Amino acid sequence: MCELMGMSANVPTDICFSFSGLMQRGGRTGPHCDGWGVAFYEGGGLRCFHDPQPCHSSAIAQLIESYPIKSENVICHIRQANVGRVSLANTHPFSRELWGQYWSFAHNGQMQAFSPQAGPFQPVGSTDSEAIFCDLLNRLRARFEQRPALAELMDCITAACTEYAEQGVCNLLISNGEWLFTLCTSKLAWITRRAPFGPAQLSDVELAVDFKEHTTPNDVVTVIATAPLTSNETWQLYATGEWRVWQGGETLLQGRLAG
Amino acid sequence: MCELMGMSANVPTDICFSFSGLMQRGGRTGPHCDGWGVAFYEGGGLRCFHDPQPCHSSAIAQLIESYPIKSENVICHIRQANVGRVSLANTHPFSRELWGQYWSFAHNGQMQAFSPQAGPFQPVGSTDSEAIFCDLLNRLRARFEQRPALAELMDCITAACTEYAEQGVCNLLISNGEWLFTLCTSKLAWITRRAPFGPAQLSDVELAVDFKEHTTPNDVVTVIATAPLTSNETWQLYATGEWRVWQGGETLLQGRLAG
Repeated sequence: MCELMGMSANVPTDICFSFSGLMQRGGRTGPHCDGWGVAFYEGGGLRCFHDPQPCHSSAIAQLIESYPIKSENVICHIRQANVGRVSLANTHPFSRELWGQYWSFAHNGQMQAFSPQAGPFQPVGSTDSEAIFCDLLNRLRARFEQRPALAELMDCITAACTEYAEQGVCNLLISNGEWLFTLCTSKLAWITRRAPFGPAQLSDVELAVDFKEHTTPNDVVTVIATAPLTSNETWQLYATGEWRVWQGGETLLQGRLAG
Repeated sequence: MCELMGMSANVPTDICFSFSGLMQRGGRTGPHCDGWGVAFYEGGGLRCFHDPQPCHSSAIAQLIESYPIKSENVICHIRQANVGRVSLANTHPFSRELWGQYWSFAHNGQMQAFSPQAGPFQPVGSTDSEAIFCDLLNRLRARFEQRPALAELMDCITAACTEYAEQGVCNLLISNGEWLFTLCTSKLAWITRRAPFGPAQLSDVELAVDFKEHTTPNDVVTVIATAPLTSNETWQLYATGEWRVWQGGETLLQGRLAG
């Protein structure tokens, strides 16, 4: 299994602290040695970093840990390969342009027998995850020629996710830079930090931060992760089948998959 | 105007030396302060770095300069904005998936009045360059449902380029990871390095390398750039309208635009 991490914030915020904890699981405190990647949105732009190297020893991961790239929507993934060999093309997050926006996608789970519908979006690599992403985009574009309203879009996404979840484990993070869609079919947790901000201590490495020193009173920052990243805060656990759309650090829409 | 740089090699090769010269033009020896980006192919995978900051002072550019990322096909661009504001979404190279391959695209030129044909590929930013790229991909996918043979593909690409060149300056680098298409409508140069390898001295900064120390006798590495990057080697200049498809450091196909 892989590890997911996402962030939704109402002001551009860096992920250096959370990433420092997560990257330990990429070969040191966790077995996820088969590459890692992160996608940062800045306005409509998307900045991705991918590395098929273990992230605890990656020069690019060290840059991300030390260089504060600020974003309102972030998706991060560290990989323990099951379907698809270790290679750059198989490294999440995957991204594609749809309706003039960059979509990005990271998956934790396994769906060995997944057979995607044919369509213009085609996988480059050989993971089940990228096949699911392309299948989802093909469904969306077949259904909507231009971008629909959010509720209509989420109806279509969650209907597809219901089918995917019937076929295997499918914890997902998806963003188009405006919102962050999150789905838990087995394991996902979240925490929202807002004023009064306090100190946080990572679980995976001796590192603490006092968010008071890095925030303003209006900041709202939600971090979503496969497993809680800090040891002194209370994370909320997603229920099985629960999905949430985050925007500006707040839940905009939420629900449970049918079935 | 912007600066382009491309590389085609028959073995995975890093671009640290050439990039060290090019990045000086991003705000120090040249006026190209409005961001930069680079795309490296590794197998089918694509690794992009983008920064709307000037590259001579960018932490990410320093990583690229010092960390040898090896690739057989590279596209690099430093930007002096004309159409479209300075932002991540307007930073080349642009990339899209077509026929299960990542395509990447960088442009040097200006085409203020360009009006692309509508189609499923849509620009995210506001540059004429990304509009040209989307227009080209829309033409290709409208014409070929699956990937055609190379000669047929190049007929379609060069026919589109003939139209683009009628509308403005259009020096281009395009790759799908298998080959590197290059087009000169005003300014482009290339050099092929092969055994016996010798020393090279950058024009823009006091830096020399002896390629003998970094190569094997069978290596063939071609670098394409808007202007020669070294002061002690003979670069070949493209003619106006000349295009070349590079693969493994060698010219695979070449021609001149009609008209």
